[in-house]
Amino acid sequence: MNYRIDSDRIYMTLAKGDLINKTFEEYAESNDIGCAWINGIGALENPEIGYYSLEMKTYRHKIFSGDYELLSLLGNITLKEGKYFSHTHITFSDSNYQVYGGHLFDAKITAAGEFIMINGDKNINREMNSAIGLPLWCLENQV
Amino acid sequence: MNYRIDSDRIYMTLAKGDLINKTFEEYAESNDIGCAWINGIGALENPEIGYYSLEMKTYRHKIFSGDYELLSLLGNITLKEGKYFSHTHITFSDSNYQVYGGHLFDAKITAAGEFIMINGDKNINREMNSAIGLPLWCLENQV
Amino acid sequence: MNYRIDSDRIYMTLAKGDLINKTFEEYAESNDIGCAWINGIGALENPEIGYYSLEMKTYRHKIFSGDYELLSLLGNITLKEGKYFSHTHITFSDSNYQVYGGHLFDAKITAAGEFIMINGDKNINREMNSAIGLPLWCLENQV
Repeated sequence: MNYRIDSDRIYMTLAKGDLINKTFEEYAESNDIGCAWINGIGALENPEIGYYSLEMKTYRHKIFSGDYELLSLLGNITLKEGKYFSHTHITFSDSNYQVYGGHLFDAKITAAGEFIMINGDKNINREMNSAIGLPLWCLENQV
Repeated sequence: MNYRIDSDRIYMTLAKGDLINKTFEEYAESNDIGCAWINGIGALENPEIGYYSLEMKTYRHKIFSGDYELLSLLGNITLKEGKYFSHTHITFSDSNYQVYGGHLFDAKITAAGEFIMINGDKNINREMNSAIGLPLWCLENQV
Repeated sequence: MNYRIDSDRIYMTLAKGDLINKTFEEYAESNDIGCAWINGIGALENPEIGYYSLEMKTYRHKIFSGDYELLSLLGNITLKEGKYFSHTHITFSDSNYQVYGGHLFDAKITAAGEFIMINGDKNINREMNSAIGLPLWCLENQV
């Protein structure tokens, strides 16, 4: 992974074989960021993605074998139990331009991996919401 | 809905049952923002989405029953006839990772709803374009 | 195309018939920008999209005839062989809300075309990576 820091934005290019979410978390850890919002495109292989069942309070998992275009990655880096955590959702397309997507567990970049991280100074902490079964953002102001 | 203001960015987490576009518009109204660009991910139910027919100058509507992962929400808040208006497009996936999408009329968050709003100081006004049949952004500079 | 410059952000609305990537490149050229990250939604026609085969080191191409909602455009403007180059990926939906997507060669806007460009001062250069067969971002810092 190569990067450039441009005030509160980080441009990142991941290399073939780099795990997407893991690389984001490693960057966050070594640069001690507050929080980040992420956007990205590129190409990836064998993405492991999920669908959350609110009823079962668990994720279904599936690994899509093969190479895909990464059409959109949107997500963020926050703190879960004191550790940096990438929460990202993706859409990706196959060679027939069919699109699949879900919650990204992780995937490796194949050809290009072009990302922008927009950083905030303060951490966002996640806390387990027992009704939902997931650790959700804790933000100060309520409407 | 909970939020944090971080200079010109707003982090927002919507709770189960919150309507997405409506919540954005209520936030804009109570905080008197200029304009905003929005990104988000999460999970939602029963999204009502549309496809615009330029020929008919109307939207087709469909409500997708059930629970879906929200893979991408991109859009903006501008002024339409003097009122804040959310214009957002989404992609979402079912439990088989199939992806659907369209113009979002509105949908309720189910599990998580994580959004970032990037605010501009000045309003963007929409004006009806009779050839298109939609209220389009009015911006000052033309190329 | 109409636009507004708001410090390092540019709001852009493309008109019916404007080519998306070409318009971004023309804007970059005439405004001598460093680099940009782009987000957008709208509606488009006859998109020419691609899927990159790492094995063949070429893109498959396809033109999707007809009118579609543009659900997400994510990408960037960098320099390739000294010229501004739009690298964008899109998802788009048909009148049945089915979603397709890929690398965008180019497409014309039909109804609306609403974009935000977030500019950086410095250029990002692409250099051909012979193992990948594509010109990839060159960034200074390596992890």
